[in-house]
Amino acid sequence: MNVLVVNCGSSSLKFQLIQTSTTKVLASGICDRIGLDGSEINYKNDKGEKLSTKTPIESHAKAIQLVLQHLVDKGAVGSLAEISAVGHRLVHGGEYFKESVLIDEKVLSEVAECSMLAPLHNPANIIGVRACQELMPNVPMVGVFDTAFHQSMPPKAYTYGVPYEWYEKHKVRRYGFHGTSHKYVSRRTAEYLGLDYHSSKIIVCHLGNGSSICAVKNGKSVDTSMGLTPLEGLIMGTRSGDLDPAILEYIADREKLSTKEIVNILNKKSGVLGISGLSSDFRDLLDADLKGDERAKLARAAFAYRVLKYIGSYCAVLIGVDAISFCGGVGENAKFIRGMIVEHLEFLGVKLDTEANNACGQEAIISTPDSKVKVCVIPTNEELIIAQDTEAIVSKL
Amino acid sequence: MNVLVVNCGSSSLKFQLIQTSTTKVLASGICDRIGLDGSEINYKNDKGEKLSTKTPIESHAKAIQLVLQHLVDKGAVGSLAEISAVGHRLVHGGEYFKESVLIDEKVLSEVAECSMLAPLHNPANIIGVRACQELMPNVPMVGVFDTAFHQSMPPKAYTYGVPYEWYEKHKVRRYGFHGTSHKYVSRRTAEYLGLDYHSSKIIVCHLGNGSSICAVKNGKSVDTSMGLTPLEGLIMGTRSGDLDPAILEYIADREKLSTKEIVNILNKKSGVLGISGLSSDFRDLLDADLKGDERAKLARAAFAYRVLKYIGSYCAVLIGVDAISFCGGVGENAKFIRGMIVEHLEFLGVKLDTEANNACGQEAIISTPDSKVKVCVIPTNEELIIAQDTEAIVSKL
Repeated sequence: MNVLVVNCGSSSLKFQLIQTSTTKVLASGICDRIGLDGSEINYKNDKGEKLSTKTPIESHAKAIQLVLQHLVDKGAVGSLAEISAVGHRLVHGGEYFKESVLIDEKVLSEVAECSMLAPLHNPANIIGVRACQELMPNVPMVGVFDTAFHQSMPPKAYTYGVPYEWYEKHKVRRYGFHGTSHKYVSRRTAEYLGLDYHSSKIIVCHLGNGSSICAVKNGKSVDTSMGLTPLEGLIMGTRSGDLDPAILEYIADREKLSTKEIVNILNKKSGVLGISGLSSDFRDLLDADLKGDERAKLARAAFAYRVLKYIGSYCAVLIGVDAISFCGGVGENAKFIRGMIVEHLEFLGVKLDTEANNACGQEAIISTPDSKVKVCVIPTNEELIIAQDTEAIVSKL
Repeated sequence: MNVLVVNCGSSSLKFQLIQTSTTKVLASGICDRIGLDGSEINYKNDKGEKLSTKTPIESHAKAIQLVLQHLVDKGAVGSLAEISAVGHRLVHGGEYFKESVLIDEKVLSEVAECSMLAPLHNPANIIGVRACQELMPNVPMVGVFDTAFHQSMPPKAYTYGVPYEWYEKHKVRRYGFHGTSHKYVSRRTAEYLGLDYHSSKIIVCHLGNGSSICAVKNGKSVDTSMGLTPLEGLIMGTRSGDLDPAILEYIADREKLSTKEIVNILNKKSGVLGISGLSSDFRDLLDADLKGDERAKLARAAFAYRVLKYIGSYCAVLIGVDAISFCGGVGENAKFIRGMIVEHLEFLGVKLDTEANNACGQEAIISTPDSKVKVCVIPTNEELIIAQDTEAIVSKL
């Protein structure tokens, strides 16, 4: 089955056309600056040939129209009839969605209700769905939520120590994100290592510009580091992660900033960028660190240290661990960061294979054969999970 | 040496007169509601006999005067000349104080500078010192800081993922509190278990109405759960502990509250009180839980779960652990809570001795003899550390 995977932001639309039987990507690309000056479509075919076209893209409907036109014109499919389904990445499913779901009007209104929890993402996601429905009225569409995989967390893990009314009235609780990635990587880790996924303890470290960790027990998420929003947890590229909440009042008083302004800084100017004052890109930080930049060194150390603390914490949650996997841009490529983390896990019986740890961007076991806990690099593939979930649901129709 | 230990709050003054050679408490008590209607002094002698006197206490100087008068009149000392030194509990020493210090004008001005970090506590502490100086001008006084023990934390542990300027300009970093307790209990744990304190890995869980955990490596604090303020970390009696910082903006918008009001709720109406809607007292929560109250059950479970996560995290920080100690009102007495935590630590080789875990309020090893990691109950004694630090400094004069 050919599934079009769509990930719609407020001014962008990413897509992949995936042939599920072969997991082959027939085409992929992005429409950028939708509704803005300088909009363009970038398209890549299955041979990796790229085409970039500057053209006015007034709306998401126009963007989808362009994508479909490219798919036919460039030969990814013979006709639109060959696209059997669309899988939409939807960010926040609140407590409504524990798994992927066939999109209908009820689903869309529930996604709209969750907009208060993800005001930047959910409305854009809905616009993307509507645009696709307009152009492909007879093609079934499936919603795959970033939060759904984490809906298996128990109350003790998702309940904050705040007035319970905030949960009842305003749905304040831990939701977690990157669920599709955590699901894919944990499942693939079990498969790769020959573990029984439904009887395994796996910690997934999704480390990128946004980062989160997930404790997966018997194939279910039991805890994760992101919270009500993607701000909580690890130190990220530009996000602070965990913080004494009293810092907001303290800084508000001293810098004469509103809470909104501070949370904006915590999202966009904090993390390793804030500590280093240099960059949110870990490659820049490594270069600077090697040249003796103390704050770049501190940013890297603080980042790795926070990851380590979460791994230890989730070992306690899982009562031990079978495998730890790294994914995401940093997790897949930053071998020094992985090394800094893994060398502290010796007490769990983890032994790093320094040679194997040179692996970048490809599946690898980076622990030694006699390591009690296996450590892996497993590149993530959220689009594939979206395509597979979509196929599974559509096949039953 | 007889040391008067003073702990001065904004409207209260706690005291203990300790004979350091025997560690005996010659007298103790509290002046309450200083400067308010209904003020009183409660006094207890070395036989445990209590005396409560309602009397106007207009100022901290008056409170100290009353205390000194009681100490002589009730026979704790023959005359004031028998009090050789005063040890003051001071809350926030910022980055100025890495250890206890003889109080002089320079010290007081630095404590005053740290008032911005502890606006409720430091000014009251200073008033207490001034009052004692007025009445005992020739008696040496020592300041023992709640934060000092944690000054050994490395930068990667105390640096938040926020703009570095917040640290440089406003001293935003993790400080940690309960330092005197963590120091006493970790040292006593090593002594009790026959470990070499200077070559040991100990996790101290100070669980009370305020709670914090500390990772102690070779006698030095390397990480702790409280942060810039005592709001961060564990779920406490009324404090939230760790939280997605974005929740402050989210709730501010929905409940139309200022940041100050929200942080006040996070300090005073959150924690297990907030979750349960019932009480901040763990004895009440146990009773309610046993009667089937679901939210009391959840509050207890979420509390224990957070402690467990920190223990796991600090095992990774310390690269293993030799001993875990519980102290504080909850840590010393709540055997069910201890049980909920310790049963998850099996992967570390911890085995709970369920019989021994009945220990309440007294030193005990609650792990089995063959447990790889020892688990203890060690009642804390902050006043004793203050008296001992004071003696050590005063003896060198």
